[in-house]
Amino acid sequence: MNSFILKGDVCCSGAPDALVTRDNSYLICENGVCAGVFDAIPPRFRDLPLTDHTGKLILPGMTDLHLHAPQYAFRGMGMDRELLDWLNAYAFPEESRYGDIAYADRAYTIFANAIRRSATTRAVIFGTLHREATALLMERMEASGVVSFVGKVNMDRNAPDSLCEASAEASLRDTERFLRETTGKFRNTYPILTPRFVPSCTDELLQGLGALSEQYQVPVQSHLSENPGEVAWVRELCPWAAHYGAVYDRFGLFGNSQKTVMAHCVYSGEEEIDLMQRNGVTIAHCPASNANVASGIAPVRRYLDRGMRIGLGSDIAGGQSESLFTAMTEALKVSRLYWRLIDSAQKPLSVAEVFYMATKGGGAFFGKVGSFEPGYEFDALVIDDSTLPHPRALMLAERLERAVTLGGDLRGLVAKYVRGKRLDLS
Amino acid sequence: MNSFILKGDVCCSGAPDALVTRDNSYLICENGVCAGVFDAIPPRFRDLPLTDHTGKLILPGMTDLHLHAPQYAFRGMGMDRELLDWLNAYAFPEESRYGDIAYADRAYTIFANAIRRSATTRAVIFGTLHREATALLMERMEASGVVSFVGKVNMDRNAPDSLCEASAEASLRDTERFLRETTGKFRNTYPILTPRFVPSCTDELLQGLGALSEQYQVPVQSHLSENPGEVAWVRELCPWAAHYGAVYDRFGLFGNSQKTVMAHCVYSGEEEIDLMQRNGVTIAHCPASNANVASGIAPVRRYLDRGMRIGLGSDIAGGQSESLFTAMTEALKVSRLYWRLIDSAQKPLSVAEVFYMATKGGGAFFGKVGSFEPGYEFDALVIDDSTLPHPRALMLAERLERAVTLGGDLRGLVAKYVRGKRLDLS
Repeated sequence: MNSFILKGDVCCSGAPDALVTRDNSYLICENGVCAGVFDAIPPRFRDLPLTDHTGKLILPGMTDLHLHAPQYAFRGMGMDRELLDWLNAYAFPEESRYGDIAYADRAYTIFANAIRRSATTRAVIFGTLHREATALLMERMEASGVVSFVGKVNMDRNAPDSLCEASAEASLRDTERFLRETTGKFRNTYPILTPRFVPSCTDELLQGLGALSEQYQVPVQSHLSENPGEVAWVRELCPWAAHYGAVYDRFGLFGNSQKTVMAHCVYSGEEEIDLMQRNGVTIAHCPASNANVASGIAPVRRYLDRGMRIGLGSDIAGGQSESLFTAMTEALKVSRLYWRLIDSAQKPLSVAEVFYMATKGGGAFFGKVGSFEPGYEFDALVIDDSTLPHPRALMLAERLERAVTLGGDLRGLVAKYVRGKRLDLS
Repeated sequence: MNSFILKGDVCCSGAPDALVTRDNSYLICENGVCAGVFDAIPPRFRDLPLTDHTGKLILPGMTDLHLHAPQYAFRGMGMDRELLDWLNAYAFPEESRYGDIAYADRAYTIFANAIRRSATTRAVIFGTLHREATALLMERMEASGVVSFVGKVNMDRNAPDSLCEASAEASLRDTERFLRETTGKFRNTYPILTPRFVPSCTDELLQGLGALSEQYQVPVQSHLSENPGEVAWVRELCPWAAHYGAVYDRFGLFGNSQKTVMAHCVYSGEEEIDLMQRNGVTIAHCPASNANVASGIAPVRRYLDRGMRIGLGSDIAGGQSESLFTAMTEALKVSRLYWRLIDSAQKPLSVAEVFYMATKGGGAFFGKVGSFEPGYEFDALVIDDSTLPHPRALMLAERLERAVTLGGDLRGLVAKYVRGKRLDLS
């Protein structure tokens, strides 16, 4: 079935700060699962079909832990406001359009094609509050071959009329229907609970979502401590909470029973960080968005040093590119500005660390994903880096570094495998 | 001769903060010079040949005010040090290779091809201290069709043996020979004096270069106030100088008689800024490099508000991409972090402002360059932005914004004209 051998220059993450590079090796997929990397083909695999990618890079597929599908249409536009203004000026008006299923179909077809052709093999995706459009998004994502969690957004306060659900009860009813209609429907596409963020969800709504999470065993995604104005607003709205994360936690939406990913975590304090670590909450670091909507810079070094769960998010359209290569480059850059401008005790990130976050770190949200260790689901990218000529021969580690940091320019993605299936990149 | 009409959706800069957008217009080139943008073809031009780019963007060519040709080979590698360490660990060892003319030939051929295929139509380029290799670089740049200033670097102190000229006198002798051999040799390629920066040039060398600048009427490029460690070092080396820029100024290398471009200006104080403005020094803002080598963020808003001369630099390899589109995006992003992290009184840059810097602002170093106003030299880019699909029709200003901010992804450069000549992009 899905069993084969790829030959090429294989790289993956070992520990968060260590790269594994294996020149001219054999990477074996057995029934969609990685059987390991070998210098020569072990006898038990010698009958498997081999695809020869000699001279090309073979990397694990990448996980995008946070992006908004309906915002793909305006990526790269409206980069002139900070978060809360930006939501009102750009994000909300665009998301309102997704009540029109024909518009949603055009937009989500463009989106799913872009993700299919990108380095992303796994994604955790916000839709809009529209149940039908979000179900359609799941169909388009399923057709793409990329594995994803997709959420119908909940908002029952502080939203424009066109994006405000009638009541917590109505929102919960619609969400339950969404869960019943989409759970188990697809092979590669799963629902996820998606309260937009605390300012747009009443306590009643959050409480109901916590109950649905437990009842239907559904994971959770949301935003956390992204922007000073947002954090202050949450403090006003929920004066009873010790911190922003405590609001989600109180309602069972903070890794309490189901796995949870929180985007940004730029302004998380000690207590919030402790709780995230205790609850095993995954952090989606979105470096391009940190800069674009002028949020600040997340203290990623601290999260890595504490051994917390962390990966990268493109945060389309807070970030303008869906490329996880771009996210890696941006993560390197903002970490260097963090060191210079905020705290010189926090060492900038290394190439190994951003590569870890894009592959194994983020992949962990999906299980054994993002590595070529035996037993990992087989997600792989084949990259022809000869499109980037060089006057001398480079070591494999240098080639990997160049691929990571020139990702935005890299036009050489020649093959992409998800769970052992090769996707059509055309 | 070089007279023709382009039809398409024309955009250029008016004032630094204003975009001019002209849907479905006629852009006329007369003998390599822009005759204007028209809604209909004026009768006097009706016999000129027309190329129909209907539906495509037509933008002014872009100027890269600061990049290092010998560093192109390691762009995207070694992004783990701040400036002074980075020079010693990566830049200097790579630049040492350019004593080998065969290596220089391979590397500069790759470099010149990359610039030819990029959005850059004008560039101000550092070579190495090797006279022969730098003359070869000029030949390669001339063949590219891009207009450029190219400098043989001077270094006579604080450099590794392989990159340290024997004496100020030897450096000056070699530089004078370089000027004599390259001045007037090319149509599009000119020499420029290039003291690397104050730490690597003795007073005697700088004094001699100032004299050469006046004698041969040659412009000047260098680095200024990029990094705190560098600025402190200059203070130690030249205790007599009121500020870093005052060193160049004392020796006639600061816009005193010839035009001068200074890269970075991240830590320039009031006095230095006043002197730059008085002397008409052009600032090359290099936002990617600001982050990559952890320099900090240049106060570009202040320079723009004072009406100073300013444009963008890719700063290859402090920046990893030669794309001026990438430089524009990075300039937007770091300006938003400047506002958030350094000074909230300094409004972030707008799309109009970064577009101005990439076109008309930087172009001014070359004369009437970077606009489609009548009398400007005809440098133009034709971009097929239909490679970026959208679910609804966009306004021209939205399309331009998207092209600017998605530049790293933009694969649609279909034609490029320099001084009215169409370049081969293959």
